[in-house]
Amino acid sequence: MMPAFKTVALIGRYKSRDVAAPLRSLARFLSERGCDVLIEQETAAESGVGGFVVADYAGIGARAGLGVVLGGDGSMLSAARALAPSGVPLVGVNQGRLGFMTDIALDTMAESMSAILAGRYALEHRTMLTARVVRAGRDTFDGIALNDIVVGKGASGRLIELVVDIDGQFLYDLRSDGLIVATPTGSTAYALSSNGPIIQPGVPAFALVPISPHTLSNRPIAVSDTSAIGVTLKFGSDARLQCDGQSQIDLVDGDRVTAWRGPHTVELVHPPGYNYYAMLREKLHWTENPL
Amino acid sequence: MMPAFKTVALIGRYKSRDVAAPLRSLARFLSERGCDVLIEQETAAESGVGGFVVADYAGIGARAGLGVVLGGDGSMLSAARALAPSGVPLVGVNQGRLGFMTDIALDTMAESMSAILAGRYALEHRTMLTARVVRAGRDTFDGIALNDIVVGKGASGRLIELVVDIDGQFLYDLRSDGLIVATPTGSTAYALSSNGPIIQPGVPAFALVPISPHTLSNRPIAVSDTSAIGVTLKFGSDARLQCDGQSQIDLVDGDRVTAWRGPHTVELVHPPGYNYYAMLREKLHWTENPL
Amino acid sequence: MMPAFKTVALIGRYKSRDVAAPLRSLARFLSERGCDVLIEQETAAESGVGGFVVADYAGIGARAGLGVVLGGDGSMLSAARALAPSGVPLVGVNQGRLGFMTDIALDTMAESMSAILAGRYALEHRTMLTARVVRAGRDTFDGIALNDIVVGKGASGRLIELVVDIDGQFLYDLRSDGLIVATPTGSTAYALSSNGPIIQPGVPAFALVPISPHTLSNRPIAVSDTSAIGVTLKFGSDARLQCDGQSQIDLVDGDRVTAWRGPHTVELVHPPGYNYYAMLREKLHWTENPL
Amino acid sequence: MMPAFKTVALIGRYKSRDVAAPLRSLARFLSERGCDVLIEQETAAESGVGGFVVADYAGIGARAGLGVVLGGDGSMLSAARALAPSGVPLVGVNQGRLGFMTDIALDTMAESMSAILAGRYALEHRTMLTARVVRAGRDTFDGIALNDIVVGKGASGRLIELVVDIDGQFLYDLRSDGLIVATPTGSTAYALSSNGPIIQPGVPAFALVPISPHTLSNRPIAVSDTSAIGVTLKFGSDARLQCDGQSQIDLVDGDRVTAWRGPHTVELVHPPGYNYYAMLREKLHWTENPL
Repeated sequence: MMPAFKTVALIGRYKSRDVAAPLRSLARFLSERGCDVLIEQETAAESGVGGFVVADYAGIGARAGLGVVLGGDGSMLSAARALAPSGVPLVGVNQGRLGFMTDIALDTMAESMSAILAGRYALEHRTMLTARVVRAGRDTFDGIALNDIVVGKGASGRLIELVVDIDGQFLYDLRSDGLIVATPTGSTAYALSSNGPIIQPGVPAFALVPISPHTLSNRPIAVSDTSAIGVTLKFGSDARLQCDGQSQIDLVDGDRVTAWRGPHTVELVHPPGYNYYAMLREKLHWTENPL
Repeated sequence: MMPAFKTVALIGRYKSRDVAAPLRSLARFLSERGCDVLIEQETAAESGVGGFVVADYAGIGARAGLGVVLGGDGSMLSAARALAPSGVPLVGVNQGRLGFMTDIALDTMAESMSAILAGRYALEHRTMLTARVVRAGRDTFDGIALNDIVVGKGASGRLIELVVDIDGQFLYDLRSDGLIVATPTGSTAYALSSNGPIIQPGVPAFALVPISPHTLSNRPIAVSDTSAIGVTLKFGSDARLQCDGQSQIDLVDGDRVTAWRGPHTVELVHPPGYNYYAMLREKLHWTENPL
Repeated sequence: MMPAFKTVALIGRYKSRDVAAPLRSLARFLSERGCDVLIEQETAAESGVGGFVVADYAGIGARAGLGVVLGGDGSMLSAARALAPSGVPLVGVNQGRLGFMTDIALDTMAESMSAILAGRYALEHRTMLTARVVRAGRDTFDGIALNDIVVGKGASGRLIELVVDIDGQFLYDLRSDGLIVATPTGSTAYALSSNGPIIQPGVPAFALVPISPHTLSNRPIAVSDTSAIGVTLKFGSDARLQCDGQSQIDLVDGDRVTAWRGPHTVELVHPPGYNYYAMLREKLHWTENPL
Repeated sequence: MMPAFKTVALIGRYKSRDVAAPLRSLARFLSERGCDVLIEQETAAESGVGGFVVADYAGIGARAGLGVVLGGDGSMLSAARALAPSGVPLVGVNQGRLGFMTDIALDTMAESMSAILAGRYALEHRTMLTARVVRAGRDTFDGIALNDIVVGKGASGRLIELVVDIDGQFLYDLRSDGLIVATPTGSTAYALSSNGPIIQPGVPAFALVPISPHTLSNRPIAVSDTSAIGVTLKFGSDARLQCDGQSQIDLVDGDRVTAWRGPHTVELVHPPGYNYYAMLREKLHWTENPL
């Protein structure tokens, strides 16, 4: 039987050597089932796993039908951003505790991958964000994020003042440690720790979550994901833009960050039995009543 | 010029006599501009305003092209539920501080109504919720709400245990004072006071907001408004269902409440210059920085 | 060697039969070590454990040097209120998951009790609250609580309006589902689920925690435990007073509830190795990082 | 009549020229009433107000019986830290909106100062924090704060991992943007924006408030102000220590910050009619019910 995905790329956790054993094991497993295996070049170099075709992200984007990420949610975020333009579907295998996105455990990897190759899987679209910084009238930075775009306080550690608008309509002046614009995927990450709501991936919304806002009624807001969210840094502040938690650019007075739904989505491949709510229960300990 | 709305119904705050003067003033104003004026029957009886056609909600639903609510957000909620099947658009005039939905002030009433009659207005659809209670296999109660459906603790005042599902998928066992299922409209009402997110009316979602949950990670969740939300009362509890804050029915063990998007929406008529974010800023004091 | 506590009273979970086996086992264990054992009368009746002296709370208060509660935190609360005037120290044995106050596990009961009888234990004072309701100038109700005094919404389920003062100084008008006045002990109970702070038992403070307050800046406040907290029910509301979650009295317009530190404290006996922070980590899953 | 305070020092907002007019006016007012007036040296230089004795903080500490701060809460914080060792009481005059600590308005300044000079005032003690950084076994930094000590994320903007202990007892491993240790005074500042409780100044406690903690049950904790709070930066992070919002020192792996109640308190002088709760109501808009 032809595998559901003929060419499969393997992407390991960044700079991790522990990934070598499961990587080799998975590569052999896939080969034996008739898949062409690609190993992402940094993963190959770091792990020392040889005997398979090595490819960079461009090559993976061009050739692979599926990407398997061996790592945690952070590894998935990196791979998702790198492969966004090509639309290669992704599945995550976590060596430790399961992540919000890396939902296959190492010890059920063979079983889950068999099912996926046999075509038994669910495909889920996840929205991504695009961020652009305009400085003095010029595009200065473009970035993408699967979780969130954060305009946060900069190197001085002082609170910042932001002017926020939605589709050009003034929302508020925000004095805070920053503002998180989160996708549904990102709603269970940094935004959640700042009191943002959980947004089911099927809801076409972004959450605007202020970080330690001075005005206590500045609660999180969910806006349509067709909105363009504008964040302008007011005079006198220093701030920093982060995409998925990666420091991207230091902002200066008057910089305007715009965040909107990007042209690409990430396709997550889930093994049989995956359930979003079960994952939330597990990750957030909902089965336990402390009080 | 023909008024944009030929027949206009006036609905006053429940059991309020203060409404007589603005009611009379508004009725004359509309008559002079060629509108046929209906006065809702309880409003007419309570206010003593005569000389206009009196109608019950069925009559208003059948004949009116516009309903004007003189009162606060509570009056708007009542009128919206009563007129939901007929789809009569509604506009709110508030005698005191502006509400989240009653966005015309008494002293600019003439100006705003002139503009609306001249066709200068914005129409906004607001989703409603339907609630059904099934007890021992039988439909026991049906209700609708514009703000929220709440399954809360009952007369004993003890915490309740709920089993919650989304489209039949188990979400969690919830030990709490209750669960709010809020529309975007309701997201700035009770749900907000229980730490729910603000949901822009254009986002097709409901917010599930636990009230004082025992498990601290039971954060608010936004789910698609195409979802059916099931809430089952576990053995041993007493609870109560409320629609828009009105006590509707005491629940017994095993009762299952289902909440989903109703067939009707409310059409809100906004005067020129209305802006959702400006309203939020005003209501939530976002212009002020206490710290 | 003389046991550190000569007369020990055993108090079982309310109306629980499961308590019979550990109760009998513990009673024998204590007898063998030279203790005089009393069994609380309802516990004796419910469990059917015979062969020991049966006593009511008054008798326990008069004779016992130590009370052992077999049950959860709720059982401890009941025993603490019942024995407050006598000052009998208490220790809790939990059959299931450890509680915030019942910190001995069933399977280490013998070891922990041996240590305690040998004088190896820590004694911790816990503040209690007294509540008084004055209606139309007359004392109408007096109660005590170890966790909290709650003035909450009543049978109608509608929000209530309270006027709150501290030592006679006006604090605020509160429109909410209610107000929790919590001791440090109660700060990890209901108050915590309503976003109250954790208060270390050594801090001489009460937490005032509003439940779903309409004004979003009505954050929890810690006040000195030498304060008298006054809560007056405004005209037009119905409300209920609860002490430790037990419905005590329905309130009517104008009722004034005063809460202050009671004359008695509870003495908790902790086995060797007890640590407040370790208990919090265990109960609140602080060792786990979901995100 | 002798003024209650013979020598009064005037301290203006940092680098503000707007302070010149009220400063001159206040200086004359005090001279006319028989006070010896000192002007803080940077204030004198910046404002250009001459004709009065100029003094640095050491001189003020040695000679003044009262310090008047013309500025906002930030100015008060600076003056309080500078004058902490000398114990000069402080009163704040705010040119704009009243602050949490600067509770005299410019237009009632004469009246309030007259009352204070006549001995009609209330004195309030406010606890301060001391912070020490130990690096590789050596004291590396010592600082004081009236509001808070914050160990927050550093220049990289990445979350940090802290090991927190109370009097040497392990509290938790904290993955977050940081940890705020706040005095009662600071409980209405940064800590409040991160969901900390308000702590009445009479409560002898510090609040530990995590900033965007990964573990959702890491709620704020109030601990005795006799505690020493230890915060150790785990391997692999970068972080920064701030006292009252001023960046003080970049931390490196293994640095241990200890925070405890300092030897000095600030004495705040309040004019007649001052009321802590009235100030909270005003600052936090408690008179308003948005919902």
